[in-house]
Amino acid sequence: MKSIELKGYQVAGISAGIKKKDEKDLAVICSQVPAVAAGVFTTNKVQAAPVILSRERIKSGKCQAIIVNSGNANCCTGEKGIEDAKTVADLVASHLDVPKDMVLVASTGVIGEPLPVHKIWDAIPDLVYAITTNGFDDFAAAIMTTDHEPKITSRIGEFDGIPFTITGIAKGSGMIRPDMATMLCFVCTDVETTPEFLQSALSSSVDRSFHRINVDGDSSTNDMVIAMANGLSGATIQNRSHENMFQFLLDQVLIELAKMIVKDGEGATKFVEIVVKGAATREGARRMALTVANSNLVKTALFGQDANWGRIMAALGRAGVDCDPNKIDIYFNDVCMVRNGLGCGKDAERSVTRVLRMPEFIITIDLKFGNMNDSVFTCDLSMDYIRINADYRS
Amino acid sequence: MKSIELKGYQVAGISAGIKKKDEKDLAVICSQVPAVAAGVFTTNKVQAAPVILSRERIKSGKCQAIIVNSGNANCCTGEKGIEDAKTVADLVASHLDVPKDMVLVASTGVIGEPLPVHKIWDAIPDLVYAITTNGFDDFAAAIMTTDHEPKITSRIGEFDGIPFTITGIAKGSGMIRPDMATMLCFVCTDVETTPEFLQSALSSSVDRSFHRINVDGDSSTNDMVIAMANGLSGATIQNRSHENMFQFLLDQVLIELAKMIVKDGEGATKFVEIVVKGAATREGARRMALTVANSNLVKTALFGQDANWGRIMAALGRAGVDCDPNKIDIYFNDVCMVRNGLGCGKDAERSVTRVLRMPEFIITIDLKFGNMNDSVFTCDLSMDYIRINADYRS
Repeated sequence: MKSIELKGYQVAGISAGIKKKDEKDLAVICSQVPAVAAGVFTTNKVQAAPVILSRERIKSGKCQAIIVNSGNANCCTGEKGIEDAKTVADLVASHLDVPKDMVLVASTGVIGEPLPVHKIWDAIPDLVYAITTNGFDDFAAAIMTTDHEPKITSRIGEFDGIPFTITGIAKGSGMIRPDMATMLCFVCTDVETTPEFLQSALSSSVDRSFHRINVDGDSSTNDMVIAMANGLSGATIQNRSHENMFQFLLDQVLIELAKMIVKDGEGATKFVEIVVKGAATREGARRMALTVANSNLVKTALFGQDANWGRIMAALGRAGVDCDPNKIDIYFNDVCMVRNGLGCGKDAERSVTRVLRMPEFIITIDLKFGNMNDSVFTCDLSMDYIRINADYRS
Repeated sequence: MKSIELKGYQVAGISAGIKKKDEKDLAVICSQVPAVAAGVFTTNKVQAAPVILSRERIKSGKCQAIIVNSGNANCCTGEKGIEDAKTVADLVASHLDVPKDMVLVASTGVIGEPLPVHKIWDAIPDLVYAITTNGFDDFAAAIMTTDHEPKITSRIGEFDGIPFTITGIAKGSGMIRPDMATMLCFVCTDVETTPEFLQSALSSSVDRSFHRINVDGDSSTNDMVIAMANGLSGATIQNRSHENMFQFLLDQVLIELAKMIVKDGEGATKFVEIVVKGAATREGARRMALTVANSNLVKTALFGQDANWGRIMAALGRAGVDCDPNKIDIYFNDVCMVRNGLGCGKDAERSVTRVLRMPEFIITIDLKFGNMNDSVFTCDLSMDYIRINADYRS
């Protein structure tokens, strides 16, 4: 599905020389009119300057433009970092002719180095000149760090015969867990709604998407998800049925982007959904799924295509969630490997090994301890992950 | 310091064919007389059969022998696993001529496969025949899994002119964090004391040693630390001063073993102490130190010898502990890399890079937010870790 139906947004992504190579690293989104806006930000106590600035500005419930750079996080940069973020925002505002306080800023990259404001300053005229309704691919490319693929998707809906579009763009190439999933996401829609509903819908969707590749409450220094709704499609969210439809489509956009982030995981060779069924609470189900998904020993066994289900049992046992180990069943796709806490033998293991050779599969853990379920997405831990992260800055 | 002064213990380690190669995998400790005993066991909800059995038996406060196998965890093996552990214990008891309920059992290795009782059955006569006061090195070798080095150390003390010895033996080659630090530890001393004091001293020492390479409350399915005190030196713990001396020496034994485990970390090339100073609480200091120590991104940067201090800041920020990021100082040995939350520049980074080339160093984080300190030990995350764990069972 193309994003070209989206009304009233112009975007661009160019190279400003912030990254070492001649790659795109500066991007902008601009709405023709002030848009209703909502945001979800990192809960890390160490917050990057753009997070501090954007979190403050979005309190108005409005925003018209977002400027994003990759290659530098503008984090641990003190008061100067905040000033730099404001300088960049002001400059974009004057070039785009939008009110200063309607511009948000996002950054991603290395922590602790001053933002190269002069490079951005020099590049902004070109950036603004480049904006177009077809610039989403350039935007997605410009916000990448260790990502291999740009991440963009759209959904189309309609209210009372009037169509509208939701387009999401994300960056993030992390393994599951906060310190490895530094991510940014920007959602543009041409629906008309209130800041309150947009915030509520965005928070719900983030919980169903990015929080399922991430530990609740944890996060990195620069994480930010921003949604803008400019109303230019003419479609308006007016009743509960509209709200449900919008929420459904927004969930789809964010879940697809979240899956793209896991699939593009640093060094990942496998995409695995971990489903926990039969838990006493949904929170417990998710905590167990995340504990399995975050275990380096489980992840290396997935990489090694080793049906080492004991590591899954060990992870479940330390999740701090009530369960009876003697009731647990574990499936790899539809192959039962563990029944009532005991292994199902060599034949089952051979079948599981065949599942493990696939690039994508589902591990289902049935606790038989209640009736709440949840699932998370994860990837394996490979040599390439180490290679990428051991010399990220060199 | 040799362990030969230790009075009244005979030990052995032989090959019973449990491991695939012809390596030692079966070990026994036997005291001449029933010893006072204490234990600390895993808190994982999934508990191996030997943990269930030994935890029950040690409630008596007494033990005379411990049989240990590597190559098989006897975990997720159901009722049959418990029966197997009892069978092995009973057989050793009859060969050693000690009461059945005075024998503890420990196992380490792959989860989910039945204990090869017949192999152990066949080997026990040879094992008992091999016991000697000089068998500690064989014992230490027989309990190894992915360990490269046996881990054994002793300390000697005296009360009122009467010398005594504490000898500790451990296995564990994990990276920090529970699912990677499956460990066993056995402490033999010839001091005379009560079960109550021995338990209290052991719990304190474990908190100062193995829990500092491990997340409190978390643990793997087979972890077990057992202490025996047979009183045969004639030295008796009679007053507070004796207690303090014994605690000090026991701490030294366990901390040295804990450091050995980290240094022998799977694929480890660096041994790093993470010190957190100036926290509001000691628990907070430890939680922050463990969060930094457990971060895959910090660990890969250590492997890559990259002074990427931003990853340390990001880990500190998500530890869930009160602090002011703008006050944090970070040192690598004596080189200040971060002052008041800001990087100290390229010269400092060059000095830090020199520190990072060393095999051992200290990272000190000063929060300037209180006056409580703690520290933990960790290692880096290398390609070899992945290699070892991706095909652990093949």
